[in-house]
Amino acid sequence: MNFYDLLLPRKIVFGAGRRREIGILAKPLGNRAILVIGSRTLEKLGIVQQLIGDLEESGISILTTKTISHEPETSDVDQLIDRLRSSLLPHDFVIALGGGAALDLGKAAAALLPQSIQDAPITDYLEGVGQGLKLESAPLPIIAVPTTAGTGAEATKNAVISSYSPPFKKSLRDDRMMPSVALIDPELSLHCPAKVTAESGMDAVTQLFESYVSRRHQPLIDALIEQGLPLAFDALPKLAKCPEDLEARCKMAYAALLSGIALANAGLGMAHGIAPALGVHCRVSHGAACALMLPSTLRTNAEVCSERYAKLARLLLRLDSNVSDDIATEKMIGRVEELCDLLGVPRRLSDLGIDPSLIPDLAKDSKGTSMSGNPKELSTEDVAEILRKMSF
Amino acid sequence: MNFYDLLLPRKIVFGAGRRREIGILAKPLGNRAILVIGSRTLEKLGIVQQLIGDLEESGISILTTKTISHEPETSDVDQLIDRLRSSLLPHDFVIALGGGAALDLGKAAAALLPQSIQDAPITDYLEGVGQGLKLESAPLPIIAVPTTAGTGAEATKNAVISSYSPPFKKSLRDDRMMPSVALIDPELSLHCPAKVTAESGMDAVTQLFESYVSRRHQPLIDALIEQGLPLAFDALPKLAKCPEDLEARCKMAYAALLSGIALANAGLGMAHGIAPALGVHCRVSHGAACALMLPSTLRTNAEVCSERYAKLARLLLRLDSNVSDDIATEKMIGRVEELCDLLGVPRRLSDLGIDPSLIPDLAKDSKGTSMSGNPKELSTEDVAEILRKMSF
Repeated sequence: MNFYDLLLPRKIVFGAGRRREIGILAKPLGNRAILVIGSRTLEKLGIVQQLIGDLEESGISILTTKTISHEPETSDVDQLIDRLRSSLLPHDFVIALGGGAALDLGKAAAALLPQSIQDAPITDYLEGVGQGLKLESAPLPIIAVPTTAGTGAEATKNAVISSYSPPFKKSLRDDRMMPSVALIDPELSLHCPAKVTAESGMDAVTQLFESYVSRRHQPLIDALIEQGLPLAFDALPKLAKCPEDLEARCKMAYAALLSGIALANAGLGMAHGIAPALGVHCRVSHGAACALMLPSTLRTNAEVCSERYAKLARLLLRLDSNVSDDIATEKMIGRVEELCDLLGVPRRLSDLGIDPSLIPDLAKDSKGTSMSGNPKELSTEDVAEILRKMSF
Repeated sequence: MNFYDLLLPRKIVFGAGRRREIGILAKPLGNRAILVIGSRTLEKLGIVQQLIGDLEESGISILTTKTISHEPETSDVDQLIDRLRSSLLPHDFVIALGGGAALDLGKAAAALLPQSIQDAPITDYLEGVGQGLKLESAPLPIIAVPTTAGTGAEATKNAVISSYSPPFKKSLRDDRMMPSVALIDPELSLHCPAKVTAESGMDAVTQLFESYVSRRHQPLIDALIEQGLPLAFDALPKLAKCPEDLEARCKMAYAALLSGIALANAGLGMAHGIAPALGVHCRVSHGAACALMLPSTLRTNAEVCSERYAKLARLLLRLDSNVSDDIATEKMIGRVEELCDLLGVPRRLSDLGIDPSLIPDLAKDSKGTSMSGNPKELSTEDVAEILRKMSF
């Protein structure tokens, strides 16, 4: 417990209906909000228009951008920056409202807009690809308003950006990209479709599990995970039955927030190492990829961290302390598999129509920041072998 | 769990020896550091000079101020502001190094220096006294470097300032006073005298207990307290025996950090409601006042929150789940009293030479922000009666 850094959103505002406070929260951050929206449903329901009204009432002017409804690609970021750069004003800030896609696009725009190099594409700033450029100027302030309970991007310092040709999915990362305000209103997730609720929920669950045993795990984050995982395991089955259960939406929104704080400070592991490759090679959504990889990740790491897994298992399953670490861990993995089955998330590569001939490419492209946090060291061949066992 | 705000330091850097990173941490915050120091010991040991060297090596110039060795008074703040205001430069920031006294003085200076009203004394900004002025301009950025494990002021948004004539001890409070960086190097507390270690440690313990049952208690803070209290109960007896136990210093520094995050977000209660009155009427140090009031605070609140106390008790004392809430709570209070005895902190007003004739004034001046968080509503007469029972 003796060495760690913690990076946190300066302000977290949580509660059903609290989106109406956006004007008061935005006022100290600037004069004009660049609005990045990721939910057509919320537009149709008039919720976006209501938020714009609340902002304008606080004297904040609005610059709207195109609604994004897919995980952001390099071209999305480059086009947005091209469009906005010439009209940027001194006290602009970003409000990103939506799932992980909108939050990541908003965070990337906030990061790149103030940079003095005018023509460098986003790729040049992404980890492991391009020129390795760093942000010279501070990003614009960000208010992140999640509408799904999953990525926790409202409390992270990175934005994940995809490219399909060449295929990569990489992070733009800088401490100063941590949102100034995370405004979490669980009512905004009430209209989330069942598939998105399940897949984004499993992203959060995977993040909580991976951060707990990551090479950079640390005590404050442990406490948050020990609280958050049982909430997610309670809420997800309830939401599968009754999507309007606001209490369960609250629990899941909170668990997702904790998972974001966790990954930003403790890192991730194998599931998040392989998920980007599944995204760019096979167009698997991030949440589905995480859910797919979670059980095998737990099994793969069990031999090196069964003590920590067993601690989580005893909390999650309320096991007696006389159950051995190995049995507790095995019961917990069984419980994760039951949850995956209940939610109808994929369990095998074949469930997603992924051809085993892609496995070598998937394994090769699974090295990255997330994989570097995995407690068990895995070679490309190890990853390929794990994927082969999950083929059918 | 459905409504809460969380205000957190943007960055926490924790670890033995990590004070040497101060140059890198300070660089993004400005060009010149206004240094507020609260430890003559660290000056004598050359540690302050070493930090100044590290800052200068990063290209940061230094403006030193008078060392403070007592809890800050209104005159300390006013004099510091008078001295510094005319020489303030655009990219100044504050580094406060010391116990709660130096951190609070540094935070108050950071808050008041940029204000355009030139001649308003600090009193006009304090809660419940003066003109009720608000901060119009944002405070200077703050790096807080605690050298005691107690107040948690490295993670709070207020500064406590005393006056003896007229007698009051009140907070200057603003969300933007939350430090930009909390740099916690437990080695800095190795030279802390036994009395300061015990009293500041009991301040942290009291904060953890009070935030857990406060009217504004909330789930993320619960998780931190459930982790922090057992660490403090483990560390304080070890430090009483062996002040050089770095592992115990780390645990206690961490528990104090958690207690600051806790009080900033969940508020406090009766012990912190009465402690300021004991400070200004009887010159009792803040930590001693907290320790004095903790057992009776726990007893007073037990009837309205025995379920939450019992949860803490089962964690702290590893009690079986079949022990009743009342018995668990009583065992926990007994354990707190044992800790107080072991640390030699005062238990009765007479231990501090306080005359019972002061009780009416003490009770009258115990209404404030902290008291408003206490789970049990207490009238002035209730407080007087509690103090009377603690006289001898």
